[in-house]
Amino acid sequence: MMMMKNPLDPEEFRRQAHLVVDFIADYYSNIENYPVCSQVEPGYLTKTMPQSAPLQPAPIETILQDVQKHIIPGITHWQSPRFFGYFQSNGSTGNFLGEMLLTGFNSVGFNWLASPAATELEMLVMEWLLKLLQLPNSFSFSSSGGGVIHGSTCESFVCTLIAAREKRLQSGTKGDALGKLVVYCSDQTHFSLQKACQVVGISPHNVRSIQTKRSMNFQLSPDALLTAIEADVRAGLIPLYVCLTVGTTPTTAVDPLLTLSEVARRFGMWVHVDAAYAGSACICPEFRHFLDGVEGANSFSFNPHKWFLTTLDCCCLWVKDQSDLTKALSNDPELLKNKASETKKVVDYKNWQIALSRRFRAMKLWMVIRSYGVTGLQQVVRKHVKLAKHFEALLSADNRFEVVVPTNFATVCFRVAASDELDSNPLTQSLLESLNGSALVYMTHAVIEGVYVIRVAIGATLTEEKHVLMLWDMVQQHATHLLAKYISPN
Amino acid sequence: MMMMKNPLDPEEFRRQAHLVVDFIADYYSNIENYPVCSQVEPGYLTKTMPQSAPLQPAPIETILQDVQKHIIPGITHWQSPRFFGYFQSNGSTGNFLGEMLLTGFNSVGFNWLASPAATELEMLVMEWLLKLLQLPNSFSFSSSGGGVIHGSTCESFVCTLIAAREKRLQSGTKGDALGKLVVYCSDQTHFSLQKACQVVGISPHNVRSIQTKRSMNFQLSPDALLTAIEADVRAGLIPLYVCLTVGTTPTTAVDPLLTLSEVARRFGMWVHVDAAYAGSACICPEFRHFLDGVEGANSFSFNPHKWFLTTLDCCCLWVKDQSDLTKALSNDPELLKNKASETKKVVDYKNWQIALSRRFRAMKLWMVIRSYGVTGLQQVVRKHVKLAKHFEALLSADNRFEVVVPTNFATVCFRVAASDELDSNPLTQSLLESLNGSALVYMTHAVIEGVYVIRVAIGATLTEEKHVLMLWDMVQQHATHLLAKYISPN
Repeated sequence: MMMMKNPLDPEEFRRQAHLVVDFIADYYSNIENYPVCSQVEPGYLTKTMPQSAPLQPAPIETILQDVQKHIIPGITHWQSPRFFGYFQSNGSTGNFLGEMLLTGFNSVGFNWLASPAATELEMLVMEWLLKLLQLPNSFSFSSSGGGVIHGSTCESFVCTLIAAREKRLQSGTKGDALGKLVVYCSDQTHFSLQKACQVVGISPHNVRSIQTKRSMNFQLSPDALLTAIEADVRAGLIPLYVCLTVGTTPTTAVDPLLTLSEVARRFGMWVHVDAAYAGSACICPEFRHFLDGVEGANSFSFNPHKWFLTTLDCCCLWVKDQSDLTKALSNDPELLKNKASETKKVVDYKNWQIALSRRFRAMKLWMVIRSYGVTGLQQVVRKHVKLAKHFEALLSADNRFEVVVPTNFATVCFRVAASDELDSNPLTQSLLESLNGSALVYMTHAVIEGVYVIRVAIGATLTEEKHVLMLWDMVQQHATHLLAKYISPN
Repeated sequence: MMMMKNPLDPEEFRRQAHLVVDFIADYYSNIENYPVCSQVEPGYLTKTMPQSAPLQPAPIETILQDVQKHIIPGITHWQSPRFFGYFQSNGSTGNFLGEMLLTGFNSVGFNWLASPAATELEMLVMEWLLKLLQLPNSFSFSSSGGGVIHGSTCESFVCTLIAAREKRLQSGTKGDALGKLVVYCSDQTHFSLQKACQVVGISPHNVRSIQTKRSMNFQLSPDALLTAIEADVRAGLIPLYVCLTVGTTPTTAVDPLLTLSEVARRFGMWVHVDAAYAGSACICPEFRHFLDGVEGANSFSFNPHKWFLTTLDCCCLWVKDQSDLTKALSNDPELLKNKASETKKVVDYKNWQIALSRRFRAMKLWMVIRSYGVTGLQQVVRKHVKLAKHFEALLSADNRFEVVVPTNFATVCFRVAASDELDSNPLTQSLLESLNGSALVYMTHAVIEGVYVIRVAIGATLTEEKHVLMLWDMVQQHATHLLAKYISPN
């Protein structure tokens, strides 16, 4: 058999990578020609792809044809300007270049020595963001805190839960006491917290999901939190951890951080603030007030991979006391011993996360910040918020619709207005199905206090005013059609 | 202020990404001009970088100059042909193109609907690999098993530990019983297992790290495992999980899977086989025997991001009963409810892992397999093994050196030969420091049964025969120099 070229041959790399750059640039140029949500049936790929790995190499040109023909039809186009589902994950050229560089270097930065730049750039970028978000200095490396990039909010939940658990129980004395630990959140908190509790061995019976109300804009009430904690303490349980949210997933509600963290601190609890979605907005001074009270937290996280022009995966976590994390997550095997680590003058990020190995994610965040600057990143947030407020105003001016909660950021929650004759929930659900069925737009839903709402998350990078106006036209047309059917079903 | 161009403007994307392709191709062309291990001092980056995020955007040309000037000096060049440290993480053009595509699409495939292609391509690739590794059909989706791509071996440990824990304890009845669960491994098992146990709430006191011996090539002994289990059962503890390794990190030892899993099954334990490094070799028929007995396992994992031309992060995990994973890791929030999931005809990978969100990692694995074919991937393994055997033969023929364990794969463990006058450990350590100090090569070490060994992991994609011969020249020269100093220290 012929020996193939080295798989990292620089000239072959150059040739093929240029082809793929053009492929992706063309994809973005044509993205509006695709259905936003993939229209394939389950199992579509199995029918078209060979059932065993090919023995021989294929030329890149053939592979790209297959991507176009077989993969793209199965993709839900999160980068489409008409994608309004879940929360967006908005990519950018700067981010893409960062991913290219970090993949190209592929330095496995588990400790400082394994690639000093990976560690030091991460520390630098986390300090930049700390200042940008006006987080208190107690979260800074210059104090006893510090920041780390995780892959997901769930990983940040797991790591801070373990830190809190070990701090409370002291290592090795677990056993019975683990069954007594209780975690608190609201019924609006992201469901990843439940899973994180499951991961670290906290029983689902010991997770208190405290009810919120529409009349309170779905904020967690300090009184309700206190009542729940006191009941557990009376029952001999141990309040461990509370998760507060700035920008909840269903409705972007904002918990009152200051009063809630004061309640939690009275019981020596760990306070985590999850601003996965809304954190990015807080780089604008006019939104920073949503973080007021964050100084009462032990840890804070937000996801640049939602609204900071950054792709998966990138979740920034800060802790006030880095030793809380490193005491719980460190190990020091012979294989990784080195003089730099022994000086204790360097950060070994393996002790700040679950896995040993880690991608050089700081590179993409640094590229994003360098490429757009703070002013550019603020511009993006403001544009999306302005579009959302405009869409909210259009809905509010039409008595067929009801905006269910105030639009804090750039996600609008609305439904078909209820009346005596109309049952809003099934109608709103039908409206969503009708809109998504067009494949021209994509949105998702939430059910809050029994109310079915359509969530419109405006934040894809390519989304412009014309896309939101097109959505508004569609909402009106589909609603007209639906209501006509409902009122005269024959 | 001027409005900037859209951050995903296709033509600007095209222009900038082409520049970065050339930057990286040039990096690979010049990679041998850099010190393999970064020579910077702790804190080097803080001194050169601004302490706050820039307000204004920078042109890509300026940013790339900064990467060249400030970032590259801080990188340890894992892709260098003279990188022989840890285990390699070997990239390739095919992998790079896959990362480009998955970043470009940035579809967040937590469930089938969120991007059907992401789920279905992952299932397809995992079935391809299952056949390629000749894993038993019980691990296939066509049976009741299936495969998933995780980010790291540690994540696979965590998820299988939780699956085993929940299966044993039944959900919600934890409390006391959790403190009784015991996990077994050898003293050669990767330390990530200890951390994974810590994560899921199993006390370090309940992790049995069973001693291995050089005389047994550092294999875990079935008798020693049985003895340890029986002692725990007598003490009222519950044997839960054993981790067996094919290709341990210190010396690439291979545990005897068949007899060990028979012991474990007698006690109803979960058996996990970790072939993080050596799994890739088992795509060659001549190495497949190292997996004999894997049919006795509940789960099996290997890392394409070590030796399968794939960059971080990519760990493939198969389980025999997918419901073990999904019962332990599922949640079904309203926000993600959709008709495809309700049919139960699709796989929702969020229920197979820790986090909700997931990158479209199957894309890079598929690109690697398509780009090189099975024959090309086998060629890579065979080339590295051949180079390692050659290096081993050179060492064996020189009585100043001792090969400490047989070279099973492409990692050679050697030391300076001990004699009455020579204390091998400090000399071997000095030899490693002297070699690494040249910055022309990079290796790491292990300490096994008190013996300090230099580990030479041959597996970087660009490594050719000339690099191994250069290493051999250097080893001889540095040893000559050191031994001369030692024998006549004045």
